[in-house]
Amino acid sequence: MQGLENLQLSFETYFAHRHFPSVPKTLYDPLEEFLANGGKRIRPVMCLLGNELFGNVHPDAYHISAAIELFHNFTLVHDDIMDKAPLRRGKPTVHQVHGEPTALLGGDVMLVAAYEYINRIDAAYLKKVLSLFNRTAREVCEGQQLDMDFESLSNVTLSDYLTMITLKTSVLLAASLQMGAIVGGASEGNQQLIYSFGKNLGIAFQIQDDYLDAFGDPLSFGKQVGGDIRSNKKTFLLIHALEAATGSDREQLHAALLENTEDKVERVLGIYKRCGVDVWAEKLKQDYLNRALHSLEEIAVSASRKQSLVALSHYLIKREK
Amino acid sequence: MQGLENLQLSFETYFAHRHFPSVPKTLYDPLEEFLANGGKRIRPVMCLLGNELFGNVHPDAYHISAAIELFHNFTLVHDDIMDKAPLRRGKPTVHQVHGEPTALLGGDVMLVAAYEYINRIDAAYLKKVLSLFNRTAREVCEGQQLDMDFESLSNVTLSDYLTMITLKTSVLLAASLQMGAIVGGASEGNQQLIYSFGKNLGIAFQIQDDYLDAFGDPLSFGKQVGGDIRSNKKTFLLIHALEAATGSDREQLHAALLENTEDKVERVLGIYKRCGVDVWAEKLKQDYLNRALHSLEEIAVSASRKQSLVALSHYLIKREK
Repeated sequence: MQGLENLQLSFETYFAHRHFPSVPKTLYDPLEEFLANGGKRIRPVMCLLGNELFGNVHPDAYHISAAIELFHNFTLVHDDIMDKAPLRRGKPTVHQVHGEPTALLGGDVMLVAAYEYINRIDAAYLKKVLSLFNRTAREVCEGQQLDMDFESLSNVTLSDYLTMITLKTSVLLAASLQMGAIVGGASEGNQQLIYSFGKNLGIAFQIQDDYLDAFGDPLSFGKQVGGDIRSNKKTFLLIHALEAATGSDREQLHAALLENTEDKVERVLGIYKRCGVDVWAEKLKQDYLNRALHSLEEIAVSASRKQSLVALSHYLIKREK
Repeated sequence: MQGLENLQLSFETYFAHRHFPSVPKTLYDPLEEFLANGGKRIRPVMCLLGNELFGNVHPDAYHISAAIELFHNFTLVHDDIMDKAPLRRGKPTVHQVHGEPTALLGGDVMLVAAYEYINRIDAAYLKKVLSLFNRTAREVCEGQQLDMDFESLSNVTLSDYLTMITLKTSVLLAASLQMGAIVGGASEGNQQLIYSFGKNLGIAFQIQDDYLDAFGDPLSFGKQVGGDIRSNKKTFLLIHALEAATGSDREQLHAALLENTEDKVERVLGIYKRCGVDVWAEKLKQDYLNRALHSLEEIAVSASRKQSLVALSHYLIKREK
């Protein structure tokens, strides 16, 4: 067993090369630069961990990991165009530096390159892996569309938001684990359990992300808190507050959505606290984490093999004391 | 043997259904509308013809045809964003009607759907077909990037242009035929010949397209002639004229590129004719058509099986009298 940190290192080593030819430079150099600029490589490592849960890590799991990382980067480059985002990973976005046409086409070719990595794997499970990869890719696109649609909708329910966030972020985490498990020779039942683990872990992570944007320590969170509140972003917190607030809190919350005053963040946080949104979110996160860990427990391999995935959960989710 | 027209009809029948789920409507309805609006379906029919050259048309050839048509439509939707094109097939473009984010994401999901069709085929040749599909998709992206790069380059040679146009348009025609041939059980040698036929036919078609934009009959061409000249678009004709013109023709051509007067088209056409660009282009088209037909002749099947592809050549390329 190599475990989380060794697999992170060995993925970096495997991935640290050019992925594209040298010409056309105008198309490929911006992509190499973007890919080298990193990110946490969580998804590819989850694929390797999904494999290692069931057996030694097979070279095919690295090919799939690379495909997943390219796919993830394709979504970032295209989402940044759609969102007109100026920054990504602390640097100007691809479209900001190289123009929208190159960023758009560069995203396209990263998606094609992801399929090239998929096609490197053993023909014995190509159809199965390709099927899961395709379904997941389509779901991620649907999640992005729902996210954009929600911006102009006033009546987004918690259930709508959960569907959107599951499609936009969780299914790729879940599929990364399952694709690794396929290569590792997992049974269909164990594959479904590892998928469920990843999906619920992803939801718990998103709840935490929404929570930290409101209640996080600016120093350890690494960015200014309250960004979601200032932009009226629909989050687990806002959607629940809109459902839970009553009386003057309800009136003040609706009023806050229509303004952009200096103290907006402070006032909305006050409403959140009075409505118990913080406690509710912590509990909801814990619920999804428990569901994830329950699926992991059900998987029919020895507990010692599961240690890396438990470590991953702790790495991603800060547990309640 | 079903032949060109029957296969065109049977592809239309096969393809005439929804390709996407009903939700999210905002993502999928614009795509269904765009796909239903047609186009000539040349590429999918080439795939079916490539199969029928070697044997009865297999259901898998229809799946690949659908993948090719979705891929082609993905490139149109994204190219139209990159080119800021207002019209496509006589109607407002997808981004014009539904906004750039939806057009961008819609293109992405059409590409994913293309891979879903590819994954429906028999596992026996999945790897081979996916490999050719991936390589071709990447080349088409490279061709689009070169096309964009050429807009701001002053020294594009005929060889550069040929590379660009081969990648941007010919390789997809060639690969469509070859993927059909793979399903039809063609030998590796015959696959290369049918690929070569499609590639050269595609180049001949592009030369004709450039020619007709300058010298075509506006009535039968279906659009105003001279559009390429007005926009200084690098075409076979302009690039050759820049190489061939001497003396005052050369001076006048360079001067014409810097202006946008009423009589620009007329004057440039005059230069083209004095330099023999029209005769040269007709001959170049014929050369590539001959190369294509030569490859077709070399294929080791009876001449009667080749009639549909000869008919396709005549359908696409108007022969010199």
